[in-house]
Amino acid sequence: MSANVPTDIVFSFTGLIKRGGVTGPHKDGWGIAFYEDKGVRLFHDPEESSRSKVAAFLQTYPIRSEIVVSHIRKANRGKVALKNTHPFVRELWGKNWVFVHNGQLRGIKNEKLDSFHPVGTTDSEAAFCWLLGKLRKKFTNVPHDRDLILEVERLLRQLAKRGVANILLSDSNLLFTHCSNRLVFITRRAPFGEAQLLDADVVVDFKKATTQNDVVTILATRPLTGNEDWGHYKPGEFRVWKKGESVYVNYSTRPA
Amino acid sequence: MSANVPTDIVFSFTGLIKRGGVTGPHKDGWGIAFYEDKGVRLFHDPEESSRSKVAAFLQTYPIRSEIVVSHIRKANRGKVALKNTHPFVRELWGKNWVFVHNGQLRGIKNEKLDSFHPVGTTDSEAAFCWLLGKLRKKFTNVPHDRDLILEVERLLRQLAKRGVANILLSDSNLLFTHCSNRLVFITRRAPFGEAQLLDADVVVDFKKATTQNDVVTILATRPLTGNEDWGHYKPGEFRVWKKGESVYVNYSTRPA
Repeated sequence: MSANVPTDIVFSFTGLIKRGGVTGPHKDGWGIAFYEDKGVRLFHDPEESSRSKVAAFLQTYPIRSEIVVSHIRKANRGKVALKNTHPFVRELWGKNWVFVHNGQLRGIKNEKLDSFHPVGTTDSEAAFCWLLGKLRKKFTNVPHDRDLILEVERLLRQLAKRGVANILLSDSNLLFTHCSNRLVFITRRAPFGEAQLLDADVVVDFKKATTQNDVVTILATRPLTGNEDWGHYKPGEFRVWKKGESVYVNYSTRPA
Repeated sequence: MSANVPTDIVFSFTGLIKRGGVTGPHKDGWGIAFYEDKGVRLFHDPEESSRSKVAAFLQTYPIRSEIVVSHIRKANRGKVALKNTHPFVRELWGKNWVFVHNGQLRGIKNEKLDSFHPVGTTDSEAAFCWLLGKLRKKFTNVPHDRDLILEVERLLRQLAKRGVANILLSDSNLLFTHCSNRLVFITRRAPFGEAQLLDADVVVDFKKATTQNDVVTILATRPLTGNEDWGHYKPGEFRVWKKGESVYVNYSTRPA
């Protein structure tokens, strides 16, 4: 999620977690990161999300955030364990960076790393450490948004050459996204309407929970609601979100 | 907590969180880190712990861990905010490091930093970043326990010269502790008995929850139970715990 006002994600989260064992096969752990200003609240659980007590608690506890990044895992590289559970988090330039990845990236675990090292054994965390290490080497201090966006795009495209790189990445200011083969989004703004989850029998009327100026974008690998018109990323699409709005988009000349 | 078997901390946590607003004045947020192997589960909340819904949830959700590090905050440097809430966490050498601090450290925020930078505005996080940066510069890879212990001691003693440094620090293997003026501990092992919290009307019979070989050490700034004999750190005492046992202790020749 990317939003221009602190917004709670309980509705979307309620649908997403069903995919961890009920409406989807992603039973190998889940996690979520909520930014509040520069701080971040993290919840990781190696249990399947549809049965997780932490996930059940979060459905009763609305946290208001401008950026939320979540992941439900189907393990392929790296066994089921807390240390292998996304989102991965590191600090760079005094900012909390958060990373989630769907796909597999050939050979990334053989790359030499310097500043950041994986704690677990996934290719995803190795890719994140590689990317942040490159950023740190290129910029000694926080770069301007434009410079950062172009460099992150370049690095994500390098990763994407290794396989499937459906990726969400945030530095607490921007939400960087890359699609290899599966990423959709919806931007909700006035006039707000109702939405119906696909994975659970839940309807929400956003009119009751929003103001005229709210802009809230939700991204997922598959649409979370059935009665709204989700946009589909193209293969090789890199897009950056800020305060709910798409602020940069580019398509690879060589789709993965 | 340091233990030789995965142990849940619900009993001690129940007493501790009362000190955030009920039996103590530490109302400016709280946090807790549970290690599971090399992974870590983090819970941070800028609300007072005695009223926190996350804290209430954790009392119903026993997480079994060999090292747990927790903190309830009374703000002096740095406003009340998520980003200023302990424990602070960073990755070094592919290990999750966790840090909590009670006290104030003069001038630490003016030190030049390179590898690690604070996200928030506390002197505690600045001290942690300074310490990890020094470790990273000294050792390019994970050192032997003995070398690491001696260097951490040297750095914590440097910090302690700046003021009050009651500190808990872990790398998921060892629990490093330094006392300027207030730190107590108790090691529980067979034969186990009953314990009665000081801050809440709760009694536990450890016989029912343990085996013959369990060793569990709890540390706190003040004793958490009334019917047990807590050991008191000396001013300037540096002590390292591993699997519930004290594996290194040294006293400063110059107490703070």
